[in-house]
Amino acid sequence: MDRLPGFRDFYPEPLPHSDVWSADARQYIFDKWRAAARRYGFREYDGPPLEPLELFTTKSGEEIVGQLYNFTDKGRREIALRPEMTPTLARMVAAHERNYKKPIKWFAIPQLFRYERQQKGRLREHFQFNADIFGESDVAADAELIALLIDTLRSFGLTSKDFVIRLSSRNAWQSFYNDTLQKTAHKGANEYEFFQIIDKLERTDPSEAEKKLSALGFALADVNAFITAGKPTAELEAILTNLAARGLGDFVKVDYHVIRGLAYYTGVVFEAFDVKGEFRAIAGGGRYDNLVKLISAGKVNLPALGFGFGDVVLLELLKARDLLPKFDAKLDVFVLIEDENLRAPSLNLVHNLREAGHTVDYSLTPARPDKQFKRAQELNASFTVKLENASTVRVKNLVTRAEKTGSPDEAPRLLTDC
Amino acid sequence: MDRLPGFRDFYPEPLPHSDVWSADARQYIFDKWRAAARRYGFREYDGPPLEPLELFTTKSGEEIVGQLYNFTDKGRREIALRPEMTPTLARMVAAHERNYKKPIKWFAIPQLFRYERQQKGRLREHFQFNADIFGESDVAADAELIALLIDTLRSFGLTSKDFVIRLSSRNAWQSFYNDTLQKTAHKGANEYEFFQIIDKLERTDPSEAEKKLSALGFALADVNAFITAGKPTAELEAILTNLAARGLGDFVKVDYHVIRGLAYYTGVVFEAFDVKGEFRAIAGGGRYDNLVKLISAGKVNLPALGFGFGDVVLLELLKARDLLPKFDAKLDVFVLIEDENLRAPSLNLVHNLREAGHTVDYSLTPARPDKQFKRAQELNASFTVKLENASTVRVKNLVTRAEKTGSPDEAPRLLTDC
Repeated sequence: MDRLPGFRDFYPEPLPHSDVWSADARQYIFDKWRAAARRYGFREYDGPPLEPLELFTTKSGEEIVGQLYNFTDKGRREIALRPEMTPTLARMVAAHERNYKKPIKWFAIPQLFRYERQQKGRLREHFQFNADIFGESDVAADAELIALLIDTLRSFGLTSKDFVIRLSSRNAWQSFYNDTLQKTAHKGANEYEFFQIIDKLERTDPSEAEKKLSALGFALADVNAFITAGKPTAELEAILTNLAARGLGDFVKVDYHVIRGLAYYTGVVFEAFDVKGEFRAIAGGGRYDNLVKLISAGKVNLPALGFGFGDVVLLELLKARDLLPKFDAKLDVFVLIEDENLRAPSLNLVHNLREAGHTVDYSLTPARPDKQFKRAQELNASFTVKLENASTVRVKNLVTRAEKTGSPDEAPRLLTDC
Repeated sequence: MDRLPGFRDFYPEPLPHSDVWSADARQYIFDKWRAAARRYGFREYDGPPLEPLELFTTKSGEEIVGQLYNFTDKGRREIALRPEMTPTLARMVAAHERNYKKPIKWFAIPQLFRYERQQKGRLREHFQFNADIFGESDVAADAELIALLIDTLRSFGLTSKDFVIRLSSRNAWQSFYNDTLQKTAHKGANEYEFFQIIDKLERTDPSEAEKKLSALGFALADVNAFITAGKPTAELEAILTNLAARGLGDFVKVDYHVIRGLAYYTGVVFEAFDVKGEFRAIAGGGRYDNLVKLISAGKVNLPALGFGFGDVVLLELLKARDLLPKFDAKLDVFVLIEDENLRAPSLNLVHNLREAGHTVDYSLTPARPDKQFKRAQELNASFTVKLENASTVRVKNLVTRAEKTGSPDEAPRLLTDC
């Protein structure tokens, strides 16, 4: 019996097979995400992995609808496994925002699900670091959020040679859209259709793009000229200045290719890319000032912004740049039991060392001394500890080969001294 | 729009409403679970939250079948949200056990799902600490696993006055079952039907239990006599001795009321209960020596045992015993920006303090000094740090009221000295 296509098994390292994933690397990534968010004063939240279908279908634009992992439950409810965290977060914030002082700075590490048409090796789930700020309309919040994204990437050892944040603006594109239509007096398009074409421009054949754009009253040459000029809006200038003040100026550039696919973005948008252009976007986000109002049916109105940062592209990038540590077994102490008459006091020793906070293992059943020592080495133990008799313990540092003896009660202290 | 019934929203503390859960308390519990497992030399794994339906329906007994959160996906696969971790783990171990030295000691913290008939306030998901050992048939492994469960509970501040492990044995019940049937020459029952009655005995009306038991050829009086005698098998004796050697004898007692509901248990079984008997079982587990073989269609045969330990009853118990800490906002440093001309160098200061590992916040936009200080207090900041001018920083310890000044570069050091 095999797992479902598009899902991952996470094993302890060393990995037994190329088809499975590392639970240790996953935890390493989660720890870095959590630490970065906390340094920035973000607090953790989480919501249900299942939500009513309409939370997603009515709010997130056509892009997402066909890709949902949705079904009818036994109570005849239309429900979906969450494809993104933002609608859940907007729902949660709308329900209880009055109890939290603004700005609200929150993060989560949800597992997200999509049911995309089967492509070989394409995953149907991933984990995503989400960080969001609510209640601040000033772009100082956008700068703070982007700084968090940059510093999170930096905490993995990535530098400005490895990644860049491409900064853009829905407002800039909205102005371009309005100005152009005013000039041409063309009608009938909606801006989101136009935004979708821009979003896919880098992956679209020019003649195809030209055709699609002209149908909406735009010329590809004008669009490309706007992108190439890349003139920052006042908002983007303020963000660049803010990030430069932190010493993070090298990590960000204005790039109007970026516009973000989701319908709900309203202001500054951004994506993190590897500089060599070998991978898909590492992370992306932006402002969604209208979403809380939409989700709460008008009851709550709060400016908001956030990003999502997945584990899969990050892992590919860290591997490619040789920045992912190895996570083989690691133990503080292996307790050797060479005399079975000493098993009971040895179990007591094991227990006391664990109580002192050490990671400790031992042979559950009688085994030859050389086999026990081999096991200690397999588990990368730093020390062996052995009862020589009921009143004497011998501690051996397996790196320095130093040894110490003392009473069993002294074992935890001997470990720090040896 | 509300969340689905039976699912939880997790908010940062202080909690805004009695109907929501604490993300901070959840993380506190996960951290304790993870730390205890690691001290015992267990390594982390995880599997998909969705699995093929048959992984659960064909393996886990009737008890579970009607309660699954199952559905048909867009690819017409019959799938289910995992109701327990053991079948996934058995699948994963069977697939790659050759690459891991025995005994395999693994743990996970999955979210699990059940679709039980709607009862007010009844949850349809919870998180569960799972720890399992593969490849060791000796009861020394059972003792190691139970010791982990005891020490995990102890790490929350719970003592032998708060909880006890009720130890039992499928083998003991199997012998009772065989011996009784041999005497009465009654036929037609299967043992699992009998085990199910025992499992529910404490919650069943005696006359009802009598009726059900006699239909299978058993007398309630005999069953009760067997339970009351509580004569430990040799296996259980060995476990009691092993735990006593660790100093954990007070935390365990033989109690044949326990038999565990799931079909796949084969040997020693156990459950953790609060001593006062106010709550449902805190945790439970046992041996399932045949499951890996069953899941792998006979390809892999490994003795196995494990426990599951959920977050919901634990939270109730910790609250009732006043052992759950408060997790209000907590910050190392709030940077005050009282002169907007110093915003750029102040952002640089914020950045450098975060680089030094501190949790740091500040006012994103211009605000009156008293409002900034109030915010620092709301966030429970330990220190305020303020640029007096481009070359002088003032650090204030909000607990001791001590102050220090120095150059901005010295700020991280001033924090440790102040």
